[in-house]
Amino acid sequence: MRSDITVELVDHSASDIGVVRAARVSTVGERSHREERGEGYMNGLLKYLMRSRHGSPFEHNYMTFLVNAPIFTVRHMMRHRTWSFNEESARYREIKPVFYVPDSDRLLRQEGKPGDYQYVPGADGDHAMLATSASRAYQAAYEEYNVLLRAGVARELARMVLPVSTYSAVYATCNARALMHFLALRTNRSDAAYVSHPQREIEIVAEQMEDEFAKLMPLTHGAFEEFGRVSP
Amino acid sequence: MRSDITVELVDHSASDIGVVRAARVSTVGERSHREERGEGYMNGLLKYLMRSRHGSPFEHNYMTFLVNAPIFTVRHMMRHRTWSFNEESARYREIKPVFYVPDSDRLLRQEGKPGDYQYVPGADGDHAMLATSASRAYQAAYEEYNVLLRAGVARELARMVLPVSTYSAVYATCNARALMHFLALRTNRSDAAYVSHPQREIEIVAEQMEDEFAKLMPLTHGAFEEFGRVSP
Amino acid sequence: MRSDITVELVDHSASDIGVVRAARVSTVGERSHREERGEGYMNGLLKYLMRSRHGSPFEHNYMTFLVNAPIFTVRHMMRHRTWSFNEESARYREIKPVFYVPDSDRLLRQEGKPGDYQYVPGADGDHAMLATSASRAYQAAYEEYNVLLRAGVARELARMVLPVSTYSAVYATCNARALMHFLALRTNRSDAAYVSHPQREIEIVAEQMEDEFAKLMPLTHGAFEEFGRVSP
Amino acid sequence: MRSDITVELVDHSASDIGVVRAARVSTVGERSHREERGEGYMNGLLKYLMRSRHGSPFEHNYMTFLVNAPIFTVRHMMRHRTWSFNEESARYREIKPVFYVPDSDRLLRQEGKPGDYQYVPGADGDHAMLATSASRAYQAAYEEYNVLLRAGVARELARMVLPVSTYSAVYATCNARALMHFLALRTNRSDAAYVSHPQREIEIVAEQMEDEFAKLMPLTHGAFEEFGRVSP
Repeated sequence: MRSDITVELVDHSASDIGVVRAARVSTVGERSHREERGEGYMNGLLKYLMRSRHGSPFEHNYMTFLVNAPIFTVRHMMRHRTWSFNEESARYREIKPVFYVPDSDRLLRQEGKPGDYQYVPGADGDHAMLATSASRAYQAAYEEYNVLLRAGVARELARMVLPVSTYSAVYATCNARALMHFLALRTNRSDAAYVSHPQREIEIVAEQMEDEFAKLMPLTHGAFEEFGRVSP
Repeated sequence: MRSDITVELVDHSASDIGVVRAARVSTVGERSHREERGEGYMNGLLKYLMRSRHGSPFEHNYMTFLVNAPIFTVRHMMRHRTWSFNEESARYREIKPVFYVPDSDRLLRQEGKPGDYQYVPGADGDHAMLATSASRAYQAAYEEYNVLLRAGVARELARMVLPVSTYSAVYATCNARALMHFLALRTNRSDAAYVSHPQREIEIVAEQMEDEFAKLMPLTHGAFEEFGRVSP
Repeated sequence: MRSDITVELVDHSASDIGVVRAARVSTVGERSHREERGEGYMNGLLKYLMRSRHGSPFEHNYMTFLVNAPIFTVRHMMRHRTWSFNEESARYREIKPVFYVPDSDRLLRQEGKPGDYQYVPGADGDHAMLATSASRAYQAAYEEYNVLLRAGVARELARMVLPVSTYSAVYATCNARALMHFLALRTNRSDAAYVSHPQREIEIVAEQMEDEFAKLMPLTHGAFEEFGRVSP
Repeated sequence: MRSDITVELVDHSASDIGVVRAARVSTVGERSHREERGEGYMNGLLKYLMRSRHGSPFEHNYMTFLVNAPIFTVRHMMRHRTWSFNEESARYREIKPVFYVPDSDRLLRQEGKPGDYQYVPGADGDHAMLATSASRAYQAAYEEYNVLLRAGVARELARMVLPVSTYSAVYATCNARALMHFLALRTNRSDAAYVSHPQREIEIVAEQMEDEFAKLMPLTHGAFEEFGRVSP
């Protein structure tokens, strides 16, 4: 069992100046070598683009992440149709017994009605109870998985007994505009223009991607935050 | 446990003549009321579009399906990014104990190497053994799911012990062009221009969609088959 | 010369209840026949979806429009990549001499700086002057177009002398979510959450589409307006 | 007047090994550092992916091109909805009098019926005649454009008299899979699995992009050619 959800930036070509260059094609009609007018100019242009929802200049770049997360979290990620994905296949390879359990920081109980849940602290033994219960289910599942494989059942069928918490590895590629859309929906922040209720596990993915994004494109990220974390 | 995978056409607006009308905008520049020149004319135009990969006229229509299938099959379906989906949520509702086991027609053993598997008949007791083994795993999983729910753990977390064979319901909407692309990749047919190796369960979904498509758009479907089952 | 820009709804399958049905798959997991709980219930659900940016239930429907507009306006429309298009082809057919001139309601002069233009009233003779000047250019262009056609030059080349104001006909298909995104960017409304500066000609297209949309899906349209005309 | 259509690769992150790495996530489930097994291994894997239409591993990369081409050619390019674009705006800037005329290599006459045209050599004076005729139209158009600008008409309206042969500059970004789809449709090659009839001007764009692509990803390009120039 494992509790961490990891995101590694494996490749990218993303910078604030790339956005500026793409935007300036609209007004200058050619590659400009004068865009290096300093951060003030760039900042102003990026904010203007964000405020008036000129989203296309934020698309001429890309970031590729390697994500290790439980299947139910990978499923949330794959709802984003402007991204590109390649995922570990349980049809082609034998799956290792690595299953998710939330760590002790993760609140387990929710109150409220569907669509407006709030998480609240639970009892002291909650996490231990959850780990024990999940462990029983995982062991039973993995035992049967091995029974089936040893009996000669195809991998793509034997895997059907495995839980949705089984870890999977995914290559995920997107551009800055698609990433901002993802962050708007998959983080829950009080400074956002509208409320999202992502499951905490996909938010953990989003937060790590946002850290990388903020490092690669600090001015773009700043403008995103300033205008309510809404994708342009 | 359940073995059937179902597809129901819940809504649509799809016809061969709709394709013809869209295509004729290119050449006539207006809505034409002369397109009802009979099946021969329509057939010729549809074949020309398919042969020369004029795909866009096949997009002005739509079909909405309600699919009931195990999660691992829903995941294959959701890789198709030009479709629209809404899926039953294990965050919002309590999941019922309905899990997939292959029926007796489904071959269980494969030979060959990754990417070029062939399914072969197995031993007599294979399906019984698989059902018994899967049943043990499913019972253990569902028991722990209930333990967790009763202990007050949020649904979105309790569900992590459930298997990828848990049934899910999905609303799936696509147009004819997107459907042909799906059929090309998710069926395994000797008369196709190239070989696909879909898992049998997603092929069962595809076959039922193809039946509906062939009824709604018989000439388009005929042209699709004639040109090697390749999406235009 | 012609001043009107027309939009005709040629086909559709769009209703508020369709959105409700798709949304309820998430919570009920099956086709529900209880959704007809009246407008109050539907209205509440649609507003909840809009407010919390659950956009996918708005995708299981479609509208097909036939648009007649100058090429420069068609180009704005075709930037929307989730739509489907078929356009009159100047490669396949001879183009008729129909060119756009703004009618007398259209303000012609702008003040301000790029990205923040305001239109202001001009002089009395402005429209007459514009019509005369444009007419000279159009006549010269169409004359040369005919010279080239008569000389045997291919249509796809002869058309290069025609102006971007030449009328074109386009079949355009989208779903309600894609349409709301289009309306947010292509209308300029003081009650919107953010300011857009569409060219007036594409706004004329958008307004006519919005009229049809409001008729087909009045509750969805109402929720769109209530939440600042931002696409969910 | 100008006859060349130019494509400049301004940024990229594209390589054969990137495709191999993405594909290997499926079978290995992690970042592999053993993929450098030499060209033979890579070549085999790339051909397998292409032959069996595993397209997703070709998406984790990108190329950004700056294209200078007439508007009617830019319009062909912008039909490709998986690409990202930023184009010079005639709303924000004054357009320079640069218009396209085909050079002397470009055949001007076509025979055959729509959808199956063949270009044939014309008479000796064809190109001179075309240049003269086009030039008259362009001069008339640009003269009126300036009349309108001087009279205070907004740029976005004054531009309506300009021809579709006016040069425009576009930033265009795509991944290798999207590029192969573009090449399949926008080149006319006898070794292709199916016949396309692109206009020569967009083919000139496609050929230059293909040159860059073949340099950046030679094995991928080789596999694309070997399997009939069909996008995976």
